[in-house]
Amino acid sequence: MADCIFCKIIKGEIPSYTVYEDEKVKAFLDTNPKTNGHLLLVPKEHKKTILDMDRDTLGYMITIIQEKLYPILKEKLNIEGLTLSQNNFLGQDVPHFHIHLIPRYTNDNLTFLSNTNQLEKIEDVYEKLKDK
Amino acid sequence: MADCIFCKIIKGEIPSYTVYEDEKVKAFLDTNPKTNGHLLLVPKEHKKTILDMDRDTLGYMITIIQEKLYPILKEKLNIEGLTLSQNNFLGQDVPHFHIHLIPRYTNDNLTFLSNTNQLEKIEDVYEKLKDK
Repeated sequence: MADCIFCKIIKGEIPSYTVYEDEKVKAFLDTNPKTNGHLLLVPKEHKKTILDMDRDTLGYMITIIQEKLYPILKEKLNIEGLTLSQNNFLGQDVPHFHIHLIPRYTNDNLTFLSNTNQLEKIEDVYEKLKDK
Repeated sequence: MADCIFCKIIKGEIPSYTVYEDEKVKAFLDTNPKTNGHLLLVPKEHKKTILDMDRDTLGYMITIIQEKLYPILKEKLNIEGLTLSQNNFLGQDVPHFHIHLIPRYTNDNLTFLSNTNQLEKIEDVYEKLKDK
């Protein structure tokens, strides 16, 4: 897509710190990292959210994490864990499907914060969700 | 695995707020939710991390998110977005592979915090990661 920043990175029109690339996917450093080595893995074909992704491409991306990206991060940065994160719709900063690979290190203090004032009792949430 | 809390939930030995279940996977409410409707999706077969997961099972889990869980959350809770998160090794609280489905709502303030004191210059990180 012409106005998509990730499509421009994929085409090389915007420079990136690319760590892995093949005909289907590209992985590059997030320039606003949560931890050292924070990567974004994107499919080269423009898809917006997980709802648009086909099983083959997603399976391929997971294989790339398993066989390429995790080993690179482990070998070069000696990571102690790996958190994957992926946003859809509200909270998705770039509307081109992407998986965050966030390396974990002792004392990185990575944590999800949220507005707990919005939390309802779990029994009440369950009542809404369960089959009637 | 005998001492795995998720295996016990899968077998029904520990009760859970189950939202979806079939022969391969189970989805239930996280009892320590970040937002309302925060689910955990697990494969019934005990696997530890993403490195142990096969492509078919992962593809199936994604399909369940696309075709079952997202529609349920959208319809029943009117979610505005969906953040997926998955921890491996350091940061993984239960050593049975699981995907967090965290519904997003306006003003939920969901954000990853981390210890920014540990961050190195991105050029230095890239120097370590790139092929020599």
